[in-house]
Amino acid sequence: MRRSERIALISNTLSRNPNKIISLNHFSQWLGAAKSSISEDIDIIKKAYKNSGQGDIATIPGAAGGVRYRAKRSLDDINAFLHDLSEVLRDQKRIIPGGYLYMTDIMFSPEYSSTIGEIFAQIFIDKGPSHVLTVETKGIPIALMTARALNVPMVVARRDSRVTEGPSVGISYVSGSGQKIHNMSLAKRALPENSRVLIIDDFMKGGGTAQGMTELVGEFKAQVVGVAMVIATAVPKEKLVSDFTTLLVLEGIDAQKGEINISINEQLM
Amino acid sequence: MRRSERIALISNTLSRNPNKIISLNHFSQWLGAAKSSISEDIDIIKKAYKNSGQGDIATIPGAAGGVRYRAKRSLDDINAFLHDLSEVLRDQKRIIPGGYLYMTDIMFSPEYSSTIGEIFAQIFIDKGPSHVLTVETKGIPIALMTARALNVPMVVARRDSRVTEGPSVGISYVSGSGQKIHNMSLAKRALPENSRVLIIDDFMKGGGTAQGMTELVGEFKAQVVGVAMVIATAVPKEKLVSDFTTLLVLEGIDAQKGEINISINEQLM
Repeated sequence: MRRSERIALISNTLSRNPNKIISLNHFSQWLGAAKSSISEDIDIIKKAYKNSGQGDIATIPGAAGGVRYRAKRSLDDINAFLHDLSEVLRDQKRIIPGGYLYMTDIMFSPEYSSTIGEIFAQIFIDKGPSHVLTVETKGIPIALMTARALNVPMVVARRDSRVTEGPSVGISYVSGSGQKIHNMSLAKRALPENSRVLIIDDFMKGGGTAQGMTELVGEFKAQVVGVAMVIATAVPKEKLVSDFTTLLVLEGIDAQKGEINISINEQLM
Repeated sequence: MRRSERIALISNTLSRNPNKIISLNHFSQWLGAAKSSISEDIDIIKKAYKNSGQGDIATIPGAAGGVRYRAKRSLDDINAFLHDLSEVLRDQKRIIPGGYLYMTDIMFSPEYSSTIGEIFAQIFIDKGPSHVLTVETKGIPIALMTARALNVPMVVARRDSRVTEGPSVGISYVSGSGQKIHNMSLAKRALPENSRVLIIDDFMKGGGTAQGMTELVGEFKAQVVGVAMVIATAVPKEKLVSDFTTLLVLEGIDAQKGEINISINEQLM
């Protein structure tokens, strides 16, 4: 097999398995080439990805070592993506009676959710998350894509406990906005003690749901290493969760004028 | 830029954008190479992927043409994957009081769900699905990964209608097993008329939920082009939905003996 063919196959494998360490031996045996040749192939891929901003290839030494791919975007690229996303969300057809913003198609889109997941992974990877947590339903695709980019499991808190998931831990929490009491629960076996949990959700207003998830993580003797949203409202300024990252800020919706005021979170840039 | 570097970048881009047609012009401008050179690069990638069973590269002619990647597995590879998956599911620690099988970790795993999504996409791509539909909650990751592999939107029916999604169409249905009445609804704007819908869910017993989704699709004047499950129970043999594809068959669970009888759907092979 020629070098260019090996490079095509190694590049495909790494791209489809983000943040997974794959041994040089694996490639060597699969592609019938010496480890030194595979090593040279990987150097070429690494350089090409780096120069074009496609991502980061790292070589991890040691017995459990190998090579690992992470998508990586420049701040300019993230900014351009968020600019486009806010343009899409500003469409006045998205205003729902009651002054809500229709975002389900975006949150459920494989393309948007995978890009957002890669961006969240890039922001939080240095915190060493071992699990991504969300609560059903709309945050699931983004949480899944974040978990995929980090190569860690996703766990999903349920609004009610399910017989098919066995014993669970449940909490009650007050939503920051509606002053209503909600429940969420998580199967006991879903989250080991001492897990390092990245909390992901689509939307934050008062922060009650995120606070509920934080409390739930505490019940599992695990630790929250980050809280991230796609969109948070500008009001109320004080959320129930003090430390969180949002990509976009929803300043307000004027249903009469058909105006949606949404901006990129400046602190991100 | 050398050919091998271009191949690394083209391979990365195609692998990260399954079933999306990307024009040769895009690669030509991005990589600063003549279209004829890009065309030769793609031929090398195509041949390497084909010979190694990594997937299928197609060149689509015409103004809207370009090049497109689809993951593609041999029947042997699918069989091996399903063999491993059923081994994992046979672990007696998965038996939940009440005789249920704990599968949430599998259904929510980025790695399992993306492989299963690619397999579903491979099975149904020739039916030309324009949308993937599931109902919350456990089917969402697999539906999303199927939608990603097909490069189409995912839509999710809700158990109750949401004010934040605007006007919706709702139906009531009787679960095939429990004889209980359930509701599901879908935002009117989520699914255009004449859509070609692939229905995906994690688990089927009586088929009531799948029948409910089929009915919901009808309410949108859209068409069901396939129904697929990860696991279906062997009993009852007659489901409310006659035509469906399942990867695995759950023959039964003996909680006392700690035995989970699960097999690969033979008709698939």
